[in-house]
Amino acid sequence: MTERVDGFTLDEIVSRFGGELTGDGRLRILQVATLENAGSDELAFLANTKYRRQLKSCRAGAVIVSPADARDCPLPCIVSDNPYAYYARVAQLLNTPPRAPSGIHPSAVVETELDQSVSIGAGTYVGKNVKIGGDSVIGPGCSIGDGVTLGPQARLYSRVTLYPGCMIGARAIIHSGAVIGADGFGFAREGDGSWTKVPQLGRVVIGNDVEVGANTTIDRGALDDTVIEDGVKLDNQIQIAHNVRIGTRTAIAGCVGIAGSARIGRRCTIGGAAMILGHLTISDDVNISAATLITKSISQPGTYSGAMPFEVHRDWLKNAAQMRHLDAIAGKIRALEARLAQLENGS
Amino acid sequence: MTERVDGFTLDEIVSRFGGELTGDGRLRILQVATLENAGSDELAFLANTKYRRQLKSCRAGAVIVSPADARDCPLPCIVSDNPYAYYARVAQLLNTPPRAPSGIHPSAVVETELDQSVSIGAGTYVGKNVKIGGDSVIGPGCSIGDGVTLGPQARLYSRVTLYPGCMIGARAIIHSGAVIGADGFGFAREGDGSWTKVPQLGRVVIGNDVEVGANTTIDRGALDDTVIEDGVKLDNQIQIAHNVRIGTRTAIAGCVGIAGSARIGRRCTIGGAAMILGHLTISDDVNISAATLITKSISQPGTYSGAMPFEVHRDWLKNAAQMRHLDAIAGKIRALEARLAQLENGS
Amino acid sequence: MTERVDGFTLDEIVSRFGGELTGDGRLRILQVATLENAGSDELAFLANTKYRRQLKSCRAGAVIVSPADARDCPLPCIVSDNPYAYYARVAQLLNTPPRAPSGIHPSAVVETELDQSVSIGAGTYVGKNVKIGGDSVIGPGCSIGDGVTLGPQARLYSRVTLYPGCMIGARAIIHSGAVIGADGFGFAREGDGSWTKVPQLGRVVIGNDVEVGANTTIDRGALDDTVIEDGVKLDNQIQIAHNVRIGTRTAIAGCVGIAGSARIGRRCTIGGAAMILGHLTISDDVNISAATLITKSISQPGTYSGAMPFEVHRDWLKNAAQMRHLDAIAGKIRALEARLAQLENGS
Repeated sequence: MTERVDGFTLDEIVSRFGGELTGDGRLRILQVATLENAGSDELAFLANTKYRRQLKSCRAGAVIVSPADARDCPLPCIVSDNPYAYYARVAQLLNTPPRAPSGIHPSAVVETELDQSVSIGAGTYVGKNVKIGGDSVIGPGCSIGDGVTLGPQARLYSRVTLYPGCMIGARAIIHSGAVIGADGFGFAREGDGSWTKVPQLGRVVIGNDVEVGANTTIDRGALDDTVIEDGVKLDNQIQIAHNVRIGTRTAIAGCVGIAGSARIGRRCTIGGAAMILGHLTISDDVNISAATLITKSISQPGTYSGAMPFEVHRDWLKNAAQMRHLDAIAGKIRALEARLAQLENGS
Repeated sequence: MTERVDGFTLDEIVSRFGGELTGDGRLRILQVATLENAGSDELAFLANTKYRRQLKSCRAGAVIVSPADARDCPLPCIVSDNPYAYYARVAQLLNTPPRAPSGIHPSAVVETELDQSVSIGAGTYVGKNVKIGGDSVIGPGCSIGDGVTLGPQARLYSRVTLYPGCMIGARAIIHSGAVIGADGFGFAREGDGSWTKVPQLGRVVIGNDVEVGANTTIDRGALDDTVIEDGVKLDNQIQIAHNVRIGTRTAIAGCVGIAGSARIGRRCTIGGAAMILGHLTISDDVNISAATLITKSISQPGTYSGAMPFEVHRDWLKNAAQMRHLDAIAGKIRALEARLAQLENGS
Repeated sequence: MTERVDGFTLDEIVSRFGGELTGDGRLRILQVATLENAGSDELAFLANTKYRRQLKSCRAGAVIVSPADARDCPLPCIVSDNPYAYYARVAQLLNTPPRAPSGIHPSAVVETELDQSVSIGAGTYVGKNVKIGGDSVIGPGCSIGDGVTLGPQARLYSRVTLYPGCMIGARAIIHSGAVIGADGFGFAREGDGSWTKVPQLGRVVIGNDVEVGANTTIDRGALDDTVIEDGVKLDNQIQIAHNVRIGTRTAIAGCVGIAGSARIGRRCTIGGAAMILGHLTISDDVNISAATLITKSISQPGTYSGAMPFEVHRDWLKNAAQMRHLDAIAGKIRALEARLAQLENGS
């Protein structure tokens, strides 16, 4: 939920964000909306040419379009090379999050002196020697351990845990239930099969402009730190193990798991439920498809996939049974080739 | 944990829930139990004929059985066409959750006036303009954002987050750690590879009689709403992305992920750890097997599967290696067929 | 974060933990570190011979090595048959967690009388009839339901939920966001497709020396209990369904799901994101590889795997397409074999 501002005219929008305007610049835009639902004081966008015919029935006040789609646009439009990014900027402009009251809620427990511009929600706990940058907003029910550093203009929604010693940069957005800095999964196996805990002495260090989704977990390092570089975006329910490093501007979809000490490059995208094994390196600009298991390092940019196709169950039963015989199938083909060659060359 | 009531006689149970009783109706039943462990004041059930021989050694006071199993039942029994559902109803009757004290715990922070029948647990935060229906019980440590609507007789266990503006129907059961209404994962990619956040302006709208498991996350819509229809049952650690719609009475097992804008039909079942890609449609009455990745729309009811079979590791190594050569294998077979045809027809 | 102690001499370390020392026993060790980063007052370890050449440039005060690596070690060393376990013990010795203040934080709500050695963090809720063993530390924002039993020297980090009636042994370590004892996913399907909730009447019973990772969920049993035996180690975001039993000293990596009533043996290891279907039995000493789906019981110790290999996307497209024709491929091979046999034997 965001506070509704009084809107902006198309002229004001274009003077702020650029783009070429076709139509009456005095039209006041109050909100963004879909092509399907936008009304006369709303701005829609067309990011994908395949929805172009929706323009005909669209009743938006104006539409953000690419140069290719501008020609046929029957509505006032703002032409931009990247309509979706343009839309995102306008949507931000029109929907600033409500300003939380500054100061510490009386029910919060705060053991550090904080800047007066910081907002601390009901029931939140802030330990000793914590640094929180100006204008940060911490929601209700959070737990921020001793020695945490959090940059300015950060926003933590309710019930976020930051374990002691973690460092997080400016403008972080962290959603409910995220846990940053819990112990990595480190145990030494003894001769009798029991496990001795390996203390996890590193931290989690997160750069600027990082968003962390709901119930995502990022473990602290064993000896060195777990590092999330600037501009990384993490969806919900991602698990990042100890000593992982994720390069700047990489975006990771929900339910992904990244095992210990994996290094992910810059500007990668990782599809939902993909899994990355530990101690491997993925180079910059790699795209990993959903539900793919990465079992070895990737040194070349590109798209990598590895999911099983689905089928009607009874077909799957038959095909899956053959998967256990693939090596035998390959052997049979070799044998057939040999026998056939003998027939061809001989007898 | 539930409060033990004084029990009910078999006559009282049958008069309440129907079914045909064989045996002394005055027997008082205090609890439900398994065939294996039930004692003389307990009611067991036989839902699966394959466990029928356990009836012989069973010491329950009575057993709920299907008509087919009633004949051989050596114990008093209630005959029902659906013994498991019958058992569920009796178990509910005998195990009403303990009545939480009405009213707001002194340590809670509540910024809305609530009905006196509502129970708010210790340390819970309730924002402004919240509506909570009568007899709802909110556990300790929850966070309920501004403008949330929650139907009557809802039960939120501890540490649930409802983001601002979400709407949830009657009789909801929401388990600890669930996060409803966090931002969808929406970012526009800029030319330099950085990501601009797309404000998530929709809500989560949940119907009546929905259960949400522990640590499950349901994201708010980008522009329109994310919608969970009546009677949907969600297990733990499920991730539901923005603008998903799930049809009434669909049940989803743990660890499932559903990507943005997917539409799931009514009365579907989705097995554990299945993944549904975004922007696709699954029709009513579809069953998806565990660990299956759904990559395209499904228009016909039925069961769909797509998991890799497991094997002893050394066999898997050999068979998995061939998976990377399947296209080549298909080509070799075509070549063999051609050569063989030539031999057969010729030389 | 841990409190730094004054360190121990190599002599003190060896007299405590055994092992054979080469070098000056008076050297004082303040911390453990990696081979790469250790300084002159730090102790490193070499657990894997493949990193042996790092010893040359290592500037640690001393190194823990195996007998095989001791010969060439240019540094003072402690020789142990299990350098990693030895390292873990020294790391624990040097890094005791900071002692939380005993007693109940004034903002906590505690409805049971507790031992004075117990520490209860800010905003934590403890219900009625709870037993917490001596020297246990409960972090901020936890919720501990009525009738819970927790052994001595337990450590719960912030925002842990223990549902009513759960039993947890000594020295438990439970990380933030874990939910123990939520309802299992039990519903009976009615004739009209709706679901009737089956009350979940069992408990979660956890042995001694168990660690539970962040945001992991363990559901209570339906009638009998869900049981986690002594010494089990669970990573983050694991989902354990109702009535599962996990044998002693089994270790499970992140994102694993275990469906209802599965029985896992002792000393098993389960790789990240593996999924175990319900109502099956896995014997002792089984290792399951990452991302493997276990669909039937395993009666023999060994390693089992079942993941799809990943490829460059365009290769995967071609190979994956053939997976839907494997049964047909097997049929074609049989036909080829028959035709070839006819040619060989005949015409």
